[in-house]
Amino acid sequence: MNRASTAKVRLLAVEGDAGARRTDSLAVEEPLEIRCGGPGQKAVRVAVTMRTPGDDFALAAGFLHGEGLIGAGDIRTIKYCDDIETPEQQYNVVTVNLRRPFDDGGLQRNFYATSSCGVCGKASIDQIEITCAPIAEGFEVPSSLLGTLPDLLRDRQRVFDRTGGLHAAGLFDREGQLVDLREDVGRHNALDKLIGKQLLDEKVPLSEGIVLVSGRASFELVQKAAAAGAPVLCAISAPSSLAVEAATRLGVTLVGFLRDDRLNVYAHPERVLVGAPA
Amino acid sequence: MNRASTAKVRLLAVEGDAGARRTDSLAVEEPLEIRCGGPGQKAVRVAVTMRTPGDDFALAAGFLHGEGLIGAGDIRTIKYCDDIETPEQQYNVVTVNLRRPFDDGGLQRNFYATSSCGVCGKASIDQIEITCAPIAEGFEVPSSLLGTLPDLLRDRQRVFDRTGGLHAAGLFDREGQLVDLREDVGRHNALDKLIGKQLLDEKVPLSEGIVLVSGRASFELVQKAAAAGAPVLCAISAPSSLAVEAATRLGVTLVGFLRDDRLNVYAHPERVLVGAPA
Repeated sequence: MNRASTAKVRLLAVEGDAGARRTDSLAVEEPLEIRCGGPGQKAVRVAVTMRTPGDDFALAAGFLHGEGLIGAGDIRTIKYCDDIETPEQQYNVVTVNLRRPFDDGGLQRNFYATSSCGVCGKASIDQIEITCAPIAEGFEVPSSLLGTLPDLLRDRQRVFDRTGGLHAAGLFDREGQLVDLREDVGRHNALDKLIGKQLLDEKVPLSEGIVLVSGRASFELVQKAAAAGAPVLCAISAPSSLAVEAATRLGVTLVGFLRDDRLNVYAHPERVLVGAPA
Repeated sequence: MNRASTAKVRLLAVEGDAGARRTDSLAVEEPLEIRCGGPGQKAVRVAVTMRTPGDDFALAAGFLHGEGLIGAGDIRTIKYCDDIETPEQQYNVVTVNLRRPFDDGGLQRNFYATSSCGVCGKASIDQIEITCAPIAEGFEVPSSLLGTLPDLLRDRQRVFDRTGGLHAAGLFDREGQLVDLREDVGRHNALDKLIGKQLLDEKVPLSEGIVLVSGRASFELVQKAAAAGAPVLCAISAPSSLAVEAATRLGVTLVGFLRDDRLNVYAHPERVLVGAPA
């Protein structure tokens, strides 16, 4: 059983011609199996993800929601597995029980975000468009406020400082206050944890939420933000082409290369007020 | 049909109080479906991964090899799908035909790297240990030589400079010469492409190969390097706890935080010569 988010390791630190034995902290990575079922149904395995332990229930809820498999009010209970022989495995299996039947016929379709015959970016976006609620209109944010977010995220990243090995996802309100922050070895997991926590707190859709991710913006991160109804998704680094296409179609404002005093808006720039005070 | 690795997008570039319309290049992200089958078998879908187009056959071969599903001599043909209605999808489906029957009973076990009942890091490593050949012994490399590799990787990263959005994986020989480099929006894909190319060229196991990845070292990257028989895996950034456990068990030398004149060795330091000339 390992539920800590960091682990101590022994290593050989080399600097120039000298090597020294040292102890250091690393981010923990462990698999999490997510199962889902409805009343009277046997829960089925939906996914296995390599994640940093912690916020596992939020991760499971956020993952299922981001894939369009569950809505805000669907969850009855979430618990760790109780039919597993070894304790170390128990905390790596989470079962989400729904109030309604779980449709695992749609599972592969959603999970892979593909048509049955072939795959392309357009098909993936078509699929997701069906399951996303429209993003709320009328939300606006000054570009100067967005520029303050990366430092706020970094200041609050607890685990990264110790391990150098974690992605972060932060949720900010329209005043630029940090509402929540989650970390994980996987960037998708960090966002799933962030959104899943809001889902469990019944705060989804995030119609006035600004989401910031520490790395790059992929298609899947846009998908998850859109499913949560967040009007603005910012990334410290570059977006992919499909992230831009998805954001454009799904109505999400996509900001990349976010720095103190500069940023790029790749989709729906109408929400970003340039030259306005923060 | 989009087989380019970069795409031009229009964006709003904001700097201070000024915004300007600009065109920029981004890394392309598109789904790739990997199918596999043996003689007389219908090929089955093994995985769908979001990847940057290019080196798709190498990616498919490398992925299947890294998951322990195929060996070096198993591949008969690799081709794009020819029964797909729309051309844009055709190049997003790759079918690998084997010389021998494809055992898709083992598929889920390998793909998820779990036992049927539960999951934990130990179970994942146990599973992989079965499918990895032992790493060759006797390979040694000066730490000073390793310090030269990040610059060599960066100098040759063609797409990153234009897009800022790609992970890279490089293969170096024991003299520190760059043998090959592959890039992708996904770091696992970059390594699959790198190893897959070597597999198709019948150069696996990489018994004198040093692999360098541009980001962090996860469990799965260690797994792929071990499956390819590479004695040394280096990462520019931090490894995870499970990456260290896996490298220790599978016999891979794992280097993290690799910089000009410093590095950390997390597993099998006996291959790293400290204070020796490059």
